[in-house]
Amino acid sequence: MIRRGVGYPFTMERGAVRVGVIGAGNIGAALVGILTDPSRRHALLDGATAPLELVGVAVRDLTRAHPGVEPDLLTDDVEALLAKDLDVLVEVAGGLEPAGAYVRAALARGVSVVTANKALMAAQGNALARLAHDHGADLFYEAAVGGAIPILRALRTSLAGERIGRVLGIVNGTTNFILTRMTQGGSDYAGALAEAQALGYAEADPRADVEGADAAAKVAILSSLAFGTPLAGEEVPHEGITGVRPVDVEFARHAGYVIKLLAVAERVGESGVSRRVHPTLVPLAHPLASVSGATNAVFVEGAKAGPLMWLGQGAGGEPSATAVLGDVLDAARNKVSGRHDAPFSGDRTLQLVEAGDLTSAYYLSVDVIDRPGVLAEVAGVFGRHGVSIRSMEQSGLADEARLSFLTHAARDRDVRATVDELAALAAVDRVGACVRVLGGAA
Amino acid sequence: MIRRGVGYPFTMERGAVRVGVIGAGNIGAALVGILTDPSRRHALLDGATAPLELVGVAVRDLTRAHPGVEPDLLTDDVEALLAKDLDVLVEVAGGLEPAGAYVRAALARGVSVVTANKALMAAQGNALARLAHDHGADLFYEAAVGGAIPILRALRTSLAGERIGRVLGIVNGTTNFILTRMTQGGSDYAGALAEAQALGYAEADPRADVEGADAAAKVAILSSLAFGTPLAGEEVPHEGITGVRPVDVEFARHAGYVIKLLAVAERVGESGVSRRVHPTLVPLAHPLASVSGATNAVFVEGAKAGPLMWLGQGAGGEPSATAVLGDVLDAARNKVSGRHDAPFSGDRTLQLVEAGDLTSAYYLSVDVIDRPGVLAEVAGVFGRHGVSIRSMEQSGLADEARLSFLTHAARDRDVRATVDELAALAAVDRVGACVRVLGGAA
Repeated sequence: MIRRGVGYPFTMERGAVRVGVIGAGNIGAALVGILTDPSRRHALLDGATAPLELVGVAVRDLTRAHPGVEPDLLTDDVEALLAKDLDVLVEVAGGLEPAGAYVRAALARGVSVVTANKALMAAQGNALARLAHDHGADLFYEAAVGGAIPILRALRTSLAGERIGRVLGIVNGTTNFILTRMTQGGSDYAGALAEAQALGYAEADPRADVEGADAAAKVAILSSLAFGTPLAGEEVPHEGITGVRPVDVEFARHAGYVIKLLAVAERVGESGVSRRVHPTLVPLAHPLASVSGATNAVFVEGAKAGPLMWLGQGAGGEPSATAVLGDVLDAARNKVSGRHDAPFSGDRTLQLVEAGDLTSAYYLSVDVIDRPGVLAEVAGVFGRHGVSIRSMEQSGLADEARLSFLTHAARDRDVRATVDELAALAAVDRVGACVRVLGGAA
Repeated sequence: MIRRGVGYPFTMERGAVRVGVIGAGNIGAALVGILTDPSRRHALLDGATAPLELVGVAVRDLTRAHPGVEPDLLTDDVEALLAKDLDVLVEVAGGLEPAGAYVRAALARGVSVVTANKALMAAQGNALARLAHDHGADLFYEAAVGGAIPILRALRTSLAGERIGRVLGIVNGTTNFILTRMTQGGSDYAGALAEAQALGYAEADPRADVEGADAAAKVAILSSLAFGTPLAGEEVPHEGITGVRPVDVEFARHAGYVIKLLAVAERVGESGVSRRVHPTLVPLAHPLASVSGATNAVFVEGAKAGPLMWLGQGAGGEPSATAVLGDVLDAARNKVSGRHDAPFSGDRTLQLVEAGDLTSAYYLSVDVIDRPGVLAEVAGVFGRHGVSIRSMEQSGLADEARLSFLTHAARDRDVRATVDELAALAAVDRVGACVRVLGGAA
């Protein structure tokens, strides 16, 4: 029998858990609102088994208005805030530096850190986790993936004993909103993007979202918890949605699919793991197919648990603040009982697998000159690369034809070689789409 | 700054966490399989920060075969198992007694208990939680609700600081399978039930499932974590699906809904909470509408987090065993750091509200004699009780007509009075359905 520790910590007299916040933007202001709402303190105290005390909120520019934050909490001196005997530092300022320096300074003092900063985790996550471990502090970042969805804690705790086969995420609300408008509203990409920008779902410079980099940083985090792959370091291959056309959406719908930008982390064979982001044809009956608008969802395939899905608001100040708060309460409970969560090491023996070695069914769209013999020529290219065609549909364009193919499962590098050879054919105007089809787990 | 506890427990030398199991049925055998699979031990060790050691499996009848369990682990002497210096006892035998006696004996020794026994929790949950608290032990029961879905831990940790407005659960796979077959397969209730029984989704005696008692026990658990209502005690009002007819399913589909058996726990006003189970017309666009077959889902509406949904396998030995395992790892981590989780007390000030005081839109189906003036007579009854009609559809039967109504939001007691008065009319053959329509949060 394990006999160790302090007995019943919550029955002993105790002080408050001291919390400092860096950043008073959307998430920071929402968090401060929750922490300072008198009607909520009872529940917060219950959850933490110690009252939380907000000791200060650091902002860059004290001359700006910070609605919702009591002025006497504000400071522009992060060092002074860190020196206030913090138990937990919340970093919701964003950006790599100086946010990273503040987080490192806190961890080095043994102060637990809660951050929503996926860019920081993607860049420095391994080193920060090590620093936390070495100084007996927690480092939690639930809000960095899926906003309000508590998927990271579930992977870290509930599924810690489960052998996970695959994680599929719709983790970027901007692109899911755009694809939903293209699917349900008949918009083209540019129109749907403009609408997303008008509604605040997309940035003026939307590249990080629409080109897949945001989702790539998130899948690196999901994969680290599901498979023990490194948090930071090797970039996750990603492809965005800028090339998705209304004809692709329409073909998918007609064939029983919907196009989603999926962040994928999956076990490959016994010793491999693949991480990637790309548009994917998702069967309409799959639970991810009905995740619409800016909603996020994460689908996990467990060996014993079977399929599990989490769904919720992927962005926004208040939803993200609830994820931050869950982490703060966890860190507070740990502080009270004098422990911290070990950095999850997972199965470190898994190796990253090159995308070219993976197999998947594909949808390809090829615009060709409409003359006899072209289909045979095109089909011959597929055959030469060992890519087997499951179905083909031809639709007429002015003096061209569009050939839409669904393939059987094929090796990625063979499909890429097929596309390259097709593009070089005189009869082929262009290969308009080459998109994976979601199939069973690898 | 909080300064307490043992520092870095996982870096200190430590023994194994000793786990005993009572019951080797579906869940027990699956759990033993996971715990004794050599290829899984690395991940288990990681998650627990101490190795788990399975010290014995108690069964009622040693002469029966227990496939998957090493014979030298088996015992029929629970007392002897409890005396083996256990850290964690897993109770997956089921039933109230002697399971309850074993759980009480373990907790009284300070042994943490993990159970999948919702009947036990519904009957004795409050007392068991108190016993656990008094002896510094954990009492976890994730597998009692939603099988593999880690919803209880999420309510207990991630959402501990969130003000929850409503919890809506599809937490009974049998009834969801039957309703799905009636919706997608055109079966009637009896045919769908027979199919569920043939496939093992329904018991030979299906009453606990189809009459809603199983879902009622589960919503009592969900409500206790979301709103601090007592686990056991006052029965949760429940209505099953035995009265749902194909015409109801068809009308619902036609009107943009699907019929689901929902377990509901919701905040009513500032100080009230309602818990209940009943068939419900769920709008097709709602995420719960697409939860089909034996799958379970829990939908949570948070004040700040917004809507969140969890989906997964609600039953089965292996899915449930993963939930048990998550609890075992949690209890093991707590044992190593010498703490236990405080029983969640939530907002104890919330009072249970009588169903009659609630408001909801309703679907009513009334079979009437097809003669002039009947509609006016029927509509008059609605009017007298202040129930406002949103839409009406008439369909002819031989010499009768069926009137299908959707009402605006009305008080439950007024709708019941309307039904009673309608049933007493000479022109009314019967009131065939009176089913709530899911609307916005209360």
